[in-house]
Amino acid sequence: METKSENACFGGVQGVYSHKSQVCGGAEMTFAVFLPAEARDGPVPVLWFLSGLTCTHENAMTKAGAQAWAADQGIALVFPDTSPRGEGVADHADFDMGQGAGFYVNATQSPWSPHFRMWDYIAEELPALVFDKFALDAGRQAISGHSMGGHGALTLAMGLPGRFRSVSAFSPICNPMQSDWGRKQFTGYLGSDETAWEAHDASLLMARTGFDGPVLTDTGTQDQFYELLRPEALASAVATRRQEATLRLQPGYDHSYFFVATFMPEHIEFHAEALYA
Amino acid sequence: METKSENACFGGVQGVYSHKSQVCGGAEMTFAVFLPAEARDGPVPVLWFLSGLTCTHENAMTKAGAQAWAADQGIALVFPDTSPRGEGVADHADFDMGQGAGFYVNATQSPWSPHFRMWDYIAEELPALVFDKFALDAGRQAISGHSMGGHGALTLAMGLPGRFRSVSAFSPICNPMQSDWGRKQFTGYLGSDETAWEAHDASLLMARTGFDGPVLTDTGTQDQFYELLRPEALASAVATRRQEATLRLQPGYDHSYFFVATFMPEHIEFHAEALYA
Repeated sequence: METKSENACFGGVQGVYSHKSQVCGGAEMTFAVFLPAEARDGPVPVLWFLSGLTCTHENAMTKAGAQAWAADQGIALVFPDTSPRGEGVADHADFDMGQGAGFYVNATQSPWSPHFRMWDYIAEELPALVFDKFALDAGRQAISGHSMGGHGALTLAMGLPGRFRSVSAFSPICNPMQSDWGRKQFTGYLGSDETAWEAHDASLLMARTGFDGPVLTDTGTQDQFYELLRPEALASAVATRRQEATLRLQPGYDHSYFFVATFMPEHIEFHAEALYA
Repeated sequence: METKSENACFGGVQGVYSHKSQVCGGAEMTFAVFLPAEARDGPVPVLWFLSGLTCTHENAMTKAGAQAWAADQGIALVFPDTSPRGEGVADHADFDMGQGAGFYVNATQSPWSPHFRMWDYIAEELPALVFDKFALDAGRQAISGHSMGGHGALTLAMGLPGRFRSVSAFSPICNPMQSDWGRKQFTGYLGSDETAWEAHDASLLMARTGFDGPVLTDTGTQDQFYELLRPEALASAVATRRQEATLRLQPGYDHSYFFVATFMPEHIEFHAEALYA
């Protein structure tokens, strides 16, 4: 692992690191970790934040304002990249496919399968690395994300029972099997057999298994991608299951980081309650 | 004035606007305004935030986390650009001269003088525009900035007595007449007669006139540009004058927006005390 930068931030350290990912076919992956001051004294709880289409590790790290609230709560933050990148890694002309658009699945189809294994990267390889290198408490993990990253947070939380104590999402893609943000990517990455897609649809997972902990989502009523997100599918599944959840629609807000930053304090407070319970 | 974007943000609106600047020789200028929810009911106090070298209106708007705290206090924020830009506007190969590096002076020298009039832009033209277009209280203004923008905040605050109730700065260029961040630019923009520079050196202004209100500065002890900032010159002038001031050195912090974001809550609280006094 290589240290790209470390900056003092809210009494702790905001770092950026890179490493060669085995599960992503040897691609060089970059990620960011915020460690609060409390990490100097021992392992702290950790909140994973998965980002959306076109983002790298950097967008949420610089624009979401999360460090202020994480520092207040003594919680670490991990910001992974959204796909493998670089020469030799497949890409696509559209912003919603290929580099910056890994969709948190393990691709099985050409030309993606050698590198695009973001599920295993987030579920296995990156945790092994960060729990080895940083003072993070693997027994106290939570997960959140924005847009495609909200999809990732919800599907990883439900797909890895017992891993995360709480899950939240900002304007998540809730029902990708019924959305143009999903069908195109699942076809490309996973092939046309839709049974292979089912582990990656939050609304379907909610209907089938739910989540053993609290769920919080926020979506803006003026979100320019509202129809692609299909929050109604997740809301229906949550209600049918009687899942412990708070699903909020926020009047006037859109899909931007201004929206994410606005509700970040409440999301971190929500996770802190679960992580310190 | 043209609206480039408006996003709901912490209960208010983060907008980006552009206009043709007369004082900057007809250059199209972009600026950002955050209006807290309270602005719907009438004029609110305003904090100007001037940015540093290479920045546009956007850097502080997206990275400083200021809206969270301004919303708490019911204070508006204005983020101007740091220079005129565009075709026909002079530029320089170095990042610290020309576009993105206006230094908050009125250039008198070729090729800069037709457009680089940032003092008049911040002191006169942009205030006239924003007080006309937005619910801002011209009787309750404060000013802050980062690096070159900290220099701008301090020199404008002292150069316009009675305008601002309080002034703060993050890692300001404190003594540009004795720094490579200053002598080069003042020579280029203002010519070699150093008497023309004196209105633009915060330490010299502090020694001569001071500021009729409270002053707050923060500088990181690990600032990579520490020698260029010369905080010791301002500190000496403040002490000699017995100026009401809090000058802080923050251990371990550098010049980045992670540093700015960390201390933004205290700067906005500082200004709120003056604006609501």
